[in-house]
Amino acid sequence: MEMTSQLKWNPVLVDPTGRRQMKPRTLGKTMVMDKGLGLLAFQDLIQTSQAHVDMIKLGFGTSVLYPQAVLRSKINLAKENGILIYPGGTFLEAAVHQNAVDSFFDMIIELGFNAVEISDGTIHMERRLRNELIARGLDEGLAVITEYGKKGWGSTIELAELIETVLIDSELGASLVTIEARESGKGVGIFDDNGACKDEELQSVLASISGELLLWEAPLKHQQVHLIRTLGADIHLGNISPDEVIALEALRRGLRSDTLISTIRKG
Amino acid sequence: MEMTSQLKWNPVLVDPTGRRQMKPRTLGKTMVMDKGLGLLAFQDLIQTSQAHVDMIKLGFGTSVLYPQAVLRSKINLAKENGILIYPGGTFLEAAVHQNAVDSFFDMIIELGFNAVEISDGTIHMERRLRNELIARGLDEGLAVITEYGKKGWGSTIELAELIETVLIDSELGASLVTIEARESGKGVGIFDDNGACKDEELQSVLASISGELLLWEAPLKHQQVHLIRTLGADIHLGNISPDEVIALEALRRGLRSDTLISTIRKG
Amino acid sequence: MEMTSQLKWNPVLVDPTGRRQMKPRTLGKTMVMDKGLGLLAFQDLIQTSQAHVDMIKLGFGTSVLYPQAVLRSKINLAKENGILIYPGGTFLEAAVHQNAVDSFFDMIIELGFNAVEISDGTIHMERRLRNELIARGLDEGLAVITEYGKKGWGSTIELAELIETVLIDSELGASLVTIEARESGKGVGIFDDNGACKDEELQSVLASISGELLLWEAPLKHQQVHLIRTLGADIHLGNISPDEVIALEALRRGLRSDTLISTIRKG
Repeated sequence: MEMTSQLKWNPVLVDPTGRRQMKPRTLGKTMVMDKGLGLLAFQDLIQTSQAHVDMIKLGFGTSVLYPQAVLRSKINLAKENGILIYPGGTFLEAAVHQNAVDSFFDMIIELGFNAVEISDGTIHMERRLRNELIARGLDEGLAVITEYGKKGWGSTIELAELIETVLIDSELGASLVTIEARESGKGVGIFDDNGACKDEELQSVLASISGELLLWEAPLKHQQVHLIRTLGADIHLGNISPDEVIALEALRRGLRSDTLISTIRKG
Repeated sequence: MEMTSQLKWNPVLVDPTGRRQMKPRTLGKTMVMDKGLGLLAFQDLIQTSQAHVDMIKLGFGTSVLYPQAVLRSKINLAKENGILIYPGGTFLEAAVHQNAVDSFFDMIIELGFNAVEISDGTIHMERRLRNELIARGLDEGLAVITEYGKKGWGSTIELAELIETVLIDSELGASLVTIEARESGKGVGIFDDNGACKDEELQSVLASISGELLLWEAPLKHQQVHLIRTLGADIHLGNISPDEVIALEALRRGLRSDTLISTIRKG
Repeated sequence: MEMTSQLKWNPVLVDPTGRRQMKPRTLGKTMVMDKGLGLLAFQDLIQTSQAHVDMIKLGFGTSVLYPQAVLRSKINLAKENGILIYPGGTFLEAAVHQNAVDSFFDMIIELGFNAVEISDGTIHMERRLRNELIARGLDEGLAVITEYGKKGWGSTIELAELIETVLIDSELGASLVTIEARESGKGVGIFDDNGACKDEELQSVLASISGELLLWEAPLKHQQVHLIRTLGADIHLGNISPDEVIALEALRRGLRSDTLISTIRKG
């Protein structure tokens, strides 16, 4: 790209809230879901959005379905830009189901992933195995992100179970616990069959657990708006489409109608 | 790209209607909504679709959220291809709310934008300020596109107000008045909660105002089909997704089932 | 792309089903719908997904709406990667309606397409003309893919008619018969107004016709899941969005929750 003189941004135009943390940040992390981006599209994502992206999940088992050279380039690009990158938890669940856990870890280490997601959204997993997988990930030098919630239609959050899971997982060394909402964001976890948010359950969760530990999957825009309005712009949000990263960042900063209006009402 | 001998298109295959204007056109303009395209994706859009794109709106406040070099390259590419490019009106509204209007205009002039959108979809704006902003835009040498309509859910068109707004705005020098439908196209303006079109209000608008002044936001395909069938292929349409520009052009030319069928019925 | 040492995939991690055919395959073909991809996006698709893509349809009349150099590059890239590429059937229907069939075939031959789709989703077409068009395509050296079904809202499959059409078309030399579902996958063919699948009609079709002849249009994920669960991972699926090719491949291989769960239940 040609060199250009840089205009000095007026801070108020770029972040009217004045509160957005830069990377590496402890609040307001964004996790992007990549379901098989091409390498040029991935380069676009990094060039345009790296300042706003903290994690990239290569959804479910997609990462082994394209050429390794593409996969390695993605992993390297992400790491060079301070981003955690990991395969979706369903991939590890499939490996567990096939008794291929060692192969799974050998593979992701050799490829250079710097994080792993441990979930039981599809398979049944004993607490003991979950503990072992968390320990294995940490031993391998990976950041460990766990997930709470089943992927089945109509699955709901069991409050006591969620709280217990987050406490144990984080004590064992997990950095974050993802709250499952799938790629569709409907009929699962905190979202009902239409993708609307179950506010009461949400409030109950936050009454017991620090919000900094929680990564909310919120693929649909109205979910992002709702969660940001309800819990603040500083929550961690995940399963964001690569096309929507900049739009989400605008939401966080009050640069889109849905959150500008909140600013006005409060102001 | 390698040079190839050019096949001479059969005009009837490319435009069965025989009526599509070339750029710069006065009828049938298309405005694309860019919510944060990467530079490679933007280059794809220009290479593939520049003949069909008249305006590009960098949605709400997204334009300050990626590197300036990317932004400047987009602006230059658009201008080199005869396209008006401007930030979404919500960004100016946020600047108004923050008392940063001068900074806003300094910035967009320095960056090279060739148009500006003036709206009050989120904030309240007195007619006098709207007049001043239109004059300011024109003074800066920008094309001025205004917008009518509130972004709130359930907002509707007030007929008398819309007509008055269009007449005053255009007399003051606005090139076009955008009819708000947001990025979702549901529950706002001429579209009801399901995104269906309010035909009676639509007809009322056009009984009083020249269609050439109006830019209809119609992000969803069925809205595009409905408006083209009702008002003709020559209306201006906006908030078109970059992925849908070619598909919309096919609709305008009767090269897609939804409008080919109309041609057959009329023929 | 830089050269990298290749990690040897563990087969069980890449395909837990152990049954996926490589290209050229006779079962489980995937047809991608391209509605106007840019050249870089198309290169991304080929680089990332060529192993999983058997056909690319350039939707309806879109192929003549971007520069020929782009179109020729797409066609060449597809052919170099063992992919059938053809314009959507609506484009030929528009040509039939305009008495421009000769021009249509001259054009697609000169451009280098290696297949053609023959449909009557929008226009009325006598059986005799359909036969002539199939013969014309074969004479020109093209693979011929026909389509059954009307595009109009609420159109349904007429079972006897479908069976007769498939039998005659395949006897005349058609490789596949596409079952119409449009780009939206709602209110047409085997899908009802909400895009849900009409299971009884589906079963009736397969009781009479070999599944290998049928290419099911299934643009929405829940349709893909339903068809794969009902008919198996080896069915041909079409109108797949370029963004969803890898995700669909994960579905076919039990690397996504929706089909991993089926594997678990069966296993």
